[in-house]
Amino acid sequence: MKVGLIGLGKMGFNLGQNLMEHNHEVAAFDVNPNAVEEIKKYGAKGAANFKELVESLEQPRILWIMVPHAHVDSVIGEILPFLKEGDIVIEAGNSHYKESIQRYNELKELGIHFMDAGTSGGMEGARHGACYMIGGDPEAWEIVEPLFRDTSVENGYLYAGKAGSGHFLKMVHNGIEYAMMAAIGEGFEVLEKSDFNFDYEKVAKVWNNGSVIRSWLMELTENAFSKYPNLDEIKGIMHSSGEGKWTVETALDLQTATPVIALSLLMRYRSLENDTFTGKVVAALRNEFGGHAVEKSE
Amino acid sequence: MKVGLIGLGKMGFNLGQNLMEHNHEVAAFDVNPNAVEEIKKYGAKGAANFKELVESLEQPRILWIMVPHAHVDSVIGEILPFLKEGDIVIEAGNSHYKESIQRYNELKELGIHFMDAGTSGGMEGARHGACYMIGGDPEAWEIVEPLFRDTSVENGYLYAGKAGSGHFLKMVHNGIEYAMMAAIGEGFEVLEKSDFNFDYEKVAKVWNNGSVIRSWLMELTENAFSKYPNLDEIKGIMHSSGEGKWTVETALDLQTATPVIALSLLMRYRSLENDTFTGKVVAALRNEFGGHAVEKSE
Repeated sequence: MKVGLIGLGKMGFNLGQNLMEHNHEVAAFDVNPNAVEEIKKYGAKGAANFKELVESLEQPRILWIMVPHAHVDSVIGEILPFLKEGDIVIEAGNSHYKESIQRYNELKELGIHFMDAGTSGGMEGARHGACYMIGGDPEAWEIVEPLFRDTSVENGYLYAGKAGSGHFLKMVHNGIEYAMMAAIGEGFEVLEKSDFNFDYEKVAKVWNNGSVIRSWLMELTENAFSKYPNLDEIKGIMHSSGEGKWTVETALDLQTATPVIALSLLMRYRSLENDTFTGKVVAALRNEFGGHAVEKSE
Repeated sequence: MKVGLIGLGKMGFNLGQNLMEHNHEVAAFDVNPNAVEEIKKYGAKGAANFKELVESLEQPRILWIMVPHAHVDSVIGEILPFLKEGDIVIEAGNSHYKESIQRYNELKELGIHFMDAGTSGGMEGARHGACYMIGGDPEAWEIVEPLFRDTSVENGYLYAGKAGSGHFLKMVHNGIEYAMMAAIGEGFEVLEKSDFNFDYEKVAKVWNNGSVIRSWLMELTENAFSKYPNLDEIKGIMHSSGEGKWTVETALDLQTATPVIALSLLMRYRSLENDTFTGKVVAALRNEFGGHAVEKSE
């Protein structure tokens, strides 16, 4: 099939190669002309601008957007003047599912299909086989399915139903990921604080072979400890990119108890601070009622 | 090698078959004579009592205990009169690591080696390849290593060092497991409460193929949903067998923050109750200060 790829960052570039390897024709555009030149070396057709990109495709045009979610609306605004009824816009970044539903509705009024696709598996997945969760119109899905089938691992794509369901699944996937990662982190924290002297790489390795907690995340843990045996080189600051927060916000809206996922998010926030105001208040209170010593700031 | 196997429950029986399949000679005893008769059919030598079991082996005798942890001390008491210096006792159940250290010390004084082995992978693992974490004396480890190597999956055993380290690792493994399971459970809870209509088996399946959260637990989730599409047949009561609690107790002793693992344990306890006294108190308080309605008990 022919697909117009917008966004040639780490994910988009790898996806482009993946698509071409599966005999799809890729026309590509990125605001960075160097990235366009680079992917042309792999056989893609480069476009100089959004207009050229869209017009190089045949109707129904398939536009695959792979850009940071802050840029999605601006990209849609740029291509919209050139889109025609029946065209299909795939948004495969990490957007909030409610935004995706809104975009679906706006494009629907113009007769344009919008599909929200959550993509998991990282850069390696984009290059050699990703995991996709996709929402949108079934008639558009019928057209684009081969693109997802060909660029995913076996059984690694799911058409989940109506608009928003793809990004909803990806959001919850990331919420689960936060708590799984916290579980692994806390487990090794207990090992580190214990009187035993464990080889963490070997521990992660044995846990990856036959144990109940074997998982891709534990394999990544093993890789990390193979490079940094005690992680001395790394600070325990846990940034987050938003989807864990969306999961918790969604759970709150649904009045659904997800304490473990929520706490894994809150502990990420805690990790961003060297000291906390909470701590100051509690220390001050212990001093007030019990005369317990406080440690002074420098 | 020759090994005396004590305990022919689901784990022990499967382990016995596994050992024999790898050309080890198994002498077996269980308080249930039917189980002894049954394993004899697979080629094991049956023993009528503890004395006969121990005395059927050659020094240094290797006794592999696979019984519920409440029975470990009684089993050790039964075999102790027949053990000699240099003999090796392997305790491969789910004991608390502090108990294992104590047993190690007591047997050490008699010149008997005690090894604590945490076993993961369930019945299927015991039968076809388990995951072991083992602590104890290195000179005993040298002797028994082939038993663990042969009955585990590839790379599925780790000699972790001094006494207690095996059961410590297994304990923390289970703590991680609790929080991972809570993560998965809460994620599907959000899906269930949402306005979307997901096929949970398909969701678990796509998450097992290429996603960041692919894992053996997610595979079990997929299996469960394949049998019970909406789990209508199952109550959400989460029992626990103790190792999650031990992990949290250990973390408390070590003054180590493991909030996510701790909360996953507490939510299991919450699931055991239909209603809570906490809830009654909070409802009563809302009524006291704000006149908010309370729901009356029947």
